[in-house]
Amino acid sequence: MLDERVQQELIAKGRAFMRGYGEMDQYMEDFESDQDLRKPQPPLVKAPIVGEEHQIPLPRDFSALPLNWDLSKLFFLRKSSRLFTEEHMSLLQLSFLLWSTQGVKKLRGKAYATLRTVPCGGARHEFETYLLVRRVDGLNPGVYHYLPMTHTLEYLGEREKLDETISDTLCGQAWAAKANVVFYWSMVAYRAEWRYGIYAHRTALIDTGHVGQNLYLACTGLGLGTCGIAAFSHDLCTQVFGLDGEEEYMVYTAPVGTIKPDNDETEEMATYSFVYESGI
Amino acid sequence: MLDERVQQELIAKGRAFMRGYGEMDQYMEDFESDQDLRKPQPPLVKAPIVGEEHQIPLPRDFSALPLNWDLSKLFFLRKSSRLFTEEHMSLLQLSFLLWSTQGVKKLRGKAYATLRTVPCGGARHEFETYLLVRRVDGLNPGVYHYLPMTHTLEYLGEREKLDETISDTLCGQAWAAKANVVFYWSMVAYRAEWRYGIYAHRTALIDTGHVGQNLYLACTGLGLGTCGIAAFSHDLCTQVFGLDGEEEYMVYTAPVGTIKPDNDETEEMATYSFVYESGI
Repeated sequence: MLDERVQQELIAKGRAFMRGYGEMDQYMEDFESDQDLRKPQPPLVKAPIVGEEHQIPLPRDFSALPLNWDLSKLFFLRKSSRLFTEEHMSLLQLSFLLWSTQGVKKLRGKAYATLRTVPCGGARHEFETYLLVRRVDGLNPGVYHYLPMTHTLEYLGEREKLDETISDTLCGQAWAAKANVVFYWSMVAYRAEWRYGIYAHRTALIDTGHVGQNLYLACTGLGLGTCGIAAFSHDLCTQVFGLDGEEEYMVYTAPVGTIKPDNDETEEMATYSFVYESGI
Repeated sequence: MLDERVQQELIAKGRAFMRGYGEMDQYMEDFESDQDLRKPQPPLVKAPIVGEEHQIPLPRDFSALPLNWDLSKLFFLRKSSRLFTEEHMSLLQLSFLLWSTQGVKKLRGKAYATLRTVPCGGARHEFETYLLVRRVDGLNPGVYHYLPMTHTLEYLGEREKLDETISDTLCGQAWAAKANVVFYWSMVAYRAEWRYGIYAHRTALIDTGHVGQNLYLACTGLGLGTCGIAAFSHDLCTQVFGLDGEEEYMVYTAPVGTIKPDNDETEEMATYSFVYESGI
């Protein structure tokens, strides 16, 4: 068992980070961001990683999708799904999920900021989207990176033992390896730090949640299932997606899969049998 | 200007917190949560703060609201709004915003967890919702607390200099004092720590964003405007809402107001004049 004093110190540190104030407030008066200091702005998005011949343009006409929803029903039906049926999933569906979570709506200024389908502090949009694709029509299984400026995927290559990789990156959560596609969002730290410096990271985690919630709702709308996962292996993600782990590192993940249309909760409930067995 | 070494250290700490691994990973093997140790579970929600005579039941029938939306249009129109027109806002609209962000759909077990309109790690739902109400039909201006189990508001009392309080709690962002209502979400830390202990806080910030995004989308659906604000005065929030600041502290805020129906961006653009003047 973890030493009680160490545990209390770590909890105090976690709380302090969440509150932001206290230690951080003392620096407020002296702090100047790199933006204040007129240092050059970093790129709004990561450049393509591989050549153009590996780019797959994504369909942008979503009118064929059943997107008309009563919002109260949408919010009511939104749930976490961990039981995937491994059915067909279309490129148009995936395109909608990518657009809903990180799609660029327009530019502010020539290249000052992107305005996207999700809000982000200072419109910095410091995230990149990577995918492990298992079963999406028209895509080879493997590793992908999303290019939001052109709404294009780039294929980074195959991955041996793909199912095992999915499970291992998600700390052994084997159910996720039945997903059609797994979303991995990284943080390009300086993109936010240029504007917010020492205050960038707390807000960026909140912004991560904005992205995740749009994925949940877009999946609900399409009749797909997802479950946000904050527990993943940073080291393995760093390796699989070729990040450096310091300037860019993984922050959130979410497997997406097909689910039973009747939304049967019996099987899903097996996960929670301890609740019912113990009578809590 | 802040000392360069101090700044680099703080940025390194922020990044380390976001990544979660490194320092934290070394404790994984020894860590046992209070749930593992079978310590009693904390309450799922905060008890009412004042007497029942101060409770206002919220309407639950949302059928009168214009909630039918094409999701791609909803995501496209979602934006941050800071220019409020101070028109009429109904209790039914506010009720929908509260339900969309923290509404309880059902219980898991007798009292193991609440399932809500937003996802949250381990279904801990460690947040409480407070409001400063300026202009909502049927409500006195002042301070409110949401009781999600019964979908009820409780009136905590008047607040002198309400507009000034709004602006001051949000670090002087005076535009927010034209909101109809301001949402303030607090974190009841042990509700998450009981299950996740030293790992609770990173995930809780992501979960905060899930809540915020549902507010954005519910506002878009209703034709209202909002803008999430992560910069607020913890000390003043602690005082205004009677928190202890240690076990419960503020994590995120969002003013909500009426906006021009034609969504005119000209005025809003004044905020960004520096972008256009400098030609970036």
